[in-house]
Amino acid sequence: MAKKPSKLKARLPRGFVDRSADDIRATDEMLLKIRKVYEQYGFDPVETPAFEYTDCLGKFLPDTDRPNAGVFSVQDDDEQWMSLRYDLTAPLARHVSENINEIQLPYRTYRAGWVFRNEKPGPGRFRQFMQFDADTVGAPGVQADAEMCMMMADTMEALGIPRGQYVIRVNNRKVLDGVMEAIGLGGEENAERRLTVLRAIDKLDKFGIEGVKLLLGEGRKDESGDFTKGAGLGAIQIDMIAKLIDTKSIETGPKSFNEHLDYIFDEHPNISYAGADLGDLVNLVQSCGYGTDRIIADPSVVRGLEYYTGMVYEAELLFDVTNEKGEVVQFGSVGGGGRYDGLVKRFTGRDVPATGFSIGVSRLMTALKNLGKLNTVDVVAPVLVTVMDGDTDALGRYQQMVQELRHAGIRAEMYQGNWKKFGNQLKYADRRNCPIAIIQGSDEFAAGDIQIKDLIEGKRLSEEIADNVTWRESRPAQMTVKRGELVAKVSELLGQQAEDRRKAAEA
Amino acid sequence: MAKKPSKLKARLPRGFVDRSADDIRATDEMLLKIRKVYEQYGFDPVETPAFEYTDCLGKFLPDTDRPNAGVFSVQDDDEQWMSLRYDLTAPLARHVSENINEIQLPYRTYRAGWVFRNEKPGPGRFRQFMQFDADTVGAPGVQADAEMCMMMADTMEALGIPRGQYVIRVNNRKVLDGVMEAIGLGGEENAERRLTVLRAIDKLDKFGIEGVKLLLGEGRKDESGDFTKGAGLGAIQIDMIAKLIDTKSIETGPKSFNEHLDYIFDEHPNISYAGADLGDLVNLVQSCGYGTDRIIADPSVVRGLEYYTGMVYEAELLFDVTNEKGEVVQFGSVGGGGRYDGLVKRFTGRDVPATGFSIGVSRLMTALKNLGKLNTVDVVAPVLVTVMDGDTDALGRYQQMVQELRHAGIRAEMYQGNWKKFGNQLKYADRRNCPIAIIQGSDEFAAGDIQIKDLIEGKRLSEEIADNVTWRESRPAQMTVKRGELVAKVSELLGQQAEDRRKAAEA
Repeated sequence: MAKKPSKLKARLPRGFVDRSADDIRATDEMLLKIRKVYEQYGFDPVETPAFEYTDCLGKFLPDTDRPNAGVFSVQDDDEQWMSLRYDLTAPLARHVSENINEIQLPYRTYRAGWVFRNEKPGPGRFRQFMQFDADTVGAPGVQADAEMCMMMADTMEALGIPRGQYVIRVNNRKVLDGVMEAIGLGGEENAERRLTVLRAIDKLDKFGIEGVKLLLGEGRKDESGDFTKGAGLGAIQIDMIAKLIDTKSIETGPKSFNEHLDYIFDEHPNISYAGADLGDLVNLVQSCGYGTDRIIADPSVVRGLEYYTGMVYEAELLFDVTNEKGEVVQFGSVGGGGRYDGLVKRFTGRDVPATGFSIGVSRLMTALKNLGKLNTVDVVAPVLVTVMDGDTDALGRYQQMVQELRHAGIRAEMYQGNWKKFGNQLKYADRRNCPIAIIQGSDEFAAGDIQIKDLIEGKRLSEEIADNVTWRESRPAQMTVKRGELVAKVSELLGQQAEDRRKAAEA
Repeated sequence: MAKKPSKLKARLPRGFVDRSADDIRATDEMLLKIRKVYEQYGFDPVETPAFEYTDCLGKFLPDTDRPNAGVFSVQDDDEQWMSLRYDLTAPLARHVSENINEIQLPYRTYRAGWVFRNEKPGPGRFRQFMQFDADTVGAPGVQADAEMCMMMADTMEALGIPRGQYVIRVNNRKVLDGVMEAIGLGGEENAERRLTVLRAIDKLDKFGIEGVKLLLGEGRKDESGDFTKGAGLGAIQIDMIAKLIDTKSIETGPKSFNEHLDYIFDEHPNISYAGADLGDLVNLVQSCGYGTDRIIADPSVVRGLEYYTGMVYEAELLFDVTNEKGEVVQFGSVGGGGRYDGLVKRFTGRDVPATGFSIGVSRLMTALKNLGKLNTVDVVAPVLVTVMDGDTDALGRYQQMVQELRHAGIRAEMYQGNWKKFGNQLKYADRRNCPIAIIQGSDEFAAGDIQIKDLIEGKRLSEEIADNVTWRESRPAQMTVKRGELVAKVSELLGQQAEDRRKAAEA
């Protein structure tokens, strides 16, 4: 059973997928709704290309002249490395820095685009996926972060996610910085351990508070027996962090949140100060009517480790789904972001404070599918003009019918396969879900007639009528009309079919 | 003046560009119009990812294990080469082959997407650009090619290009194959020379008939003195080809086209046969009302050399533009395609005839700009709520106004920069083209008032009124109203401004 080596095998590299018509239409509709919210908020589109110089993306390791793993990189003619963007934030920082003299700050922009990760793909993890970002560059104040949180909340609702099924969690990274100091993990020498602690906190969703405690201490063994070494904190340190991130013990409202911090950390000044900033943000959104059912302060939000310098926020979906292991879990994060005051400075040397967030488009689409909020867009398949005779004159006549229908605004096509087996044409119409077929053999042509076949009614009549709701007097599944009536009769029939769909949807 | 090497320079690799808001909005509008035509014709969207295995793209040279130049390639973990797609046709062939058992043929699909060329960039030549393709796979007959030509013509008109300013030229590559035989260039041993002849014919637009004759003979020297070696044909051969492609000597209509071929090539059977096929196509489109002002047979159309096997077609814009050398030239091709019966067979071993075309999106947009057919989309900039006081309570009040406006469907934003210099806020509003600014200082707040500043009227009043057409009684450029009237008054004012724009556009 040796395969012939000569025939080329059609296959895609791992982690890449084709997109179906349904997926594309649903994504387009979703992007449109998101864009509308961003535009309402006063953001304008700006896009960057797929490639950037690798150094502009910050993807060189300090001691190497080859790009860091995780990105797809190629070397240009002049030996400079370029990489495909792995997110939309680093390219925006490059764009702003390159055009800093022409850009009016604050610069409020949005963009949807493909990003690429040269990583091991897994279930639901692709090497090419779409993000939809919004950023305000040149905005130092907490009001800009507050606006981002409100915009994320409004976006969730614009997509049909009901209030109570999502929440925007917000934290100040400076609270966590202060906490590190307070538990004795300040200074350059503790950078590694701080990372381990932050990674442990970031796992609260996944492992619960007991799991996090293990990761903060000696370490944690998972079900498969794999052991993750912990941060090695002492009991008091672990207890403080556990209290910090135990959001159930925090009363809602900014005041009580700050009291919570002061109580645990004994009014540590850096923590109090950062907590007060977070309180300002919560006050701001609450004064605009965004209650704790929509936007809450949550000290367990870490949101990546790389470039955030202040507020971080995350949009989380709260409804349950069954994961690949068959466990019922909350759907979780569909996007987030934060303040990145240092990214532009890398280029310009100038302080350019910025804040923004990113939505994972495919992940959000999966969520909407789960919620049943993704309208499978109601696109009617084309009317099929069948081919009974293949000489040029006859083909011209069929094609004329098609063009007449199209110019009247009706989706239509002529059968383009081998016309000689008429059964194949009807099978094609069936698989494609065509609503109507038009037939004109030589007899009908001689008589100036055409036949109009109602394929939906035909299908209905051939099935058992299941209940009274769908019952109505049947239409003729096929009728003979004059050629000149083509457009009028097809329009009428499509109208009747649309009415049937409407009634069925109501029932 | 040595530069510090430590600061990172923000720059893009050559051949890549950022896209502005205007460009993105105009492109989106254009894509929407094109998509509408394709949908009307019964095509559905299908998309493939940016990467393909290099062998699937056919980009290995016979004697090398590294990818051919012209594509961006990276080696995967398992040492297989993958490349960024350089067009949308080769990936479609892979997609169809991979899913051949699930796909119902004929398969009618469209897709817009970025493609990548690892080539030297130049003026108007980018290394990343967008194509918009439509293809019918599994359609053997000339009626499928005819439909593509009509769809290209309808697309041009849907974009606002007037009839007479564009033409779809169509040829049959088999006519050219027959011509090669007739002039003694048949057989494997003449493959190179045939390519040279086809390349020469392809230059008709650029160099005129005399230039092509030189390229068919000894060769041609351009203005800079560079010499291009010719195909070395004899005088009789050159004369036959010159007659063939001299479209001015062909009467319009398919019959006379075939007579033209038979006259030159003495009824050479392969040429006659291929010419008759082309005649059928022209008959078909004419029977649907597409005259020679829209679709014409043109034996000079070559349309790339790689994979076309039958009909080839090209959408050409006929209006004059000034090129980068200051010469007045016809705008030329904005897209084209043809029949590629062999591409799927490479994978499946099965004959799967296909035909399709590709539109160069950026090039078409340049054309529409030249024609003044690109509506700079009328997006009104946001209403700016200025910041007079930066404490959290005041920021909350400003943000409330913004949210009220947004929820009433009005684009609005609060100033997010450093609020302390009010002049900067007005400068921002001016550069951003904001229509209205809202101002509330502490006095106004105490009185329950806000000020509404009409920035458009303000600008108008500060300029001289140029002529009577634009003259009308002026509105107050600023008014004080109650806080509760915010949305109503802003809506009213935006309505008046829109009415002014409408009148100005009419005048």
